[in-house]
Amino acid sequence: MARDREQPISDAVIKRLPIYLRYLTYLDRMGVRTVSSHQMGKDLGLNPAQIRKDLAHFGEFGRKGIGYEVRYLIKKIRQILHLDQLIPVALVGAGHLGTALARYNAFQQDNMRIVAIFDHSPLKAGREIDGIRIQPMEELQPTVKEKDIRVGIITVPDYAAQEVADLLVEAGIEAILNFAPTIIHVPPHVRVHHADLTTELHSLAYYLRQPEYLVM
Amino acid sequence: MARDREQPISDAVIKRLPIYLRYLTYLDRMGVRTVSSHQMGKDLGLNPAQIRKDLAHFGEFGRKGIGYEVRYLIKKIRQILHLDQLIPVALVGAGHLGTALARYNAFQQDNMRIVAIFDHSPLKAGREIDGIRIQPMEELQPTVKEKDIRVGIITVPDYAAQEVADLLVEAGIEAILNFAPTIIHVPPHVRVHHADLTTELHSLAYYLRQPEYLVM
Repeated sequence: MARDREQPISDAVIKRLPIYLRYLTYLDRMGVRTVSSHQMGKDLGLNPAQIRKDLAHFGEFGRKGIGYEVRYLIKKIRQILHLDQLIPVALVGAGHLGTALARYNAFQQDNMRIVAIFDHSPLKAGREIDGIRIQPMEELQPTVKEKDIRVGIITVPDYAAQEVADLLVEAGIEAILNFAPTIIHVPPHVRVHHADLTTELHSLAYYLRQPEYLVM
Repeated sequence: MARDREQPISDAVIKRLPIYLRYLTYLDRMGVRTVSSHQMGKDLGLNPAQIRKDLAHFGEFGRKGIGYEVRYLIKKIRQILHLDQLIPVALVGAGHLGTALARYNAFQQDNMRIVAIFDHSPLKAGREIDGIRIQPMEELQPTVKEKDIRVGIITVPDYAAQEVADLLVEAGIEAILNFAPTIIHVPPHVRVHHADLTTELHSLAYYLRQPEYLVM
């Protein structure tokens, strides 16, 4: 869907779609059938006009006076994000964060599925996380090809992140989600997103009460 | 700073500030002294006009033809987000994600510092993560008061999240970062942000090549 369009959709719009999806999935679980952009904006802390504009990039999903049909919009956003197909994912780094992600992923029963886990430590290779065997790094390249893995998640320490990224790129991966607190460089045909666990924490601090004795 | 203003700043603006901060900190580490909103927009996938507008809410930080001074802007954003003061944080749930966060936090040497970790499991209580002792849940209330803890991070399973949120609110916490994959409810004076590890992964999927054989 995304390739034939004249004007590319901005990254900011694409980054908001999963937030809409998560919210709508919650509404669906609560039995809500339709929702207005006004209500969405209120619940998500976003401008309703922006939400309407974001969604209008992809089609006419809303109806005047009714709003959006929750299930239909979920289906559409999943299509737009390519989440209606199975996307095999490899995770590199079976430390605490990697283990948490592998378990979380299994729990969510998502179409983006971690199908292989790699770790450089011989102590970890052979162990399992939720039924997936941890493989040594040497098996990364053949496994990526064999299992048609398209996305890599990096959960290694910062000093090892670039090396792992290079291996993933060499193996033919198309996109990388990097949790290591450093910037990694990849060729232009590979997409990288940086996930930072502290971003949400930092924006929370803004809302704390200011102690009276503090001079700013 | 945030309270005396006539018009409240939208949540969307506040959520972008930590992204600017992370980016600027990276530039500073690379030795970059000034940056234009145009360059920032390009690197962050955001509209330069939006960046200028976001920052203009808080003052006149940029200079025509020069752009923003990196270190000055870092200092200002840290002030705006209240990150120039020490903010004690409690973490509840010493599983894999909690452990990863506690370690990550220590590594970052942030002003938002995890100073207490709680877990309901008697097997975990007494153990340490990077020098911080895991305490039983019964000690949450007195410890929050004693250490003047203002922010709580929830990394327990989804079914336990609401109960933990209630305990944190009762103990007097002002803000909560919830990593459990569920919505939690709190009184209006408490701020909640939901951190979802899958959001970035989902927006990545959009950029994958579409196989030719797939009919959308």
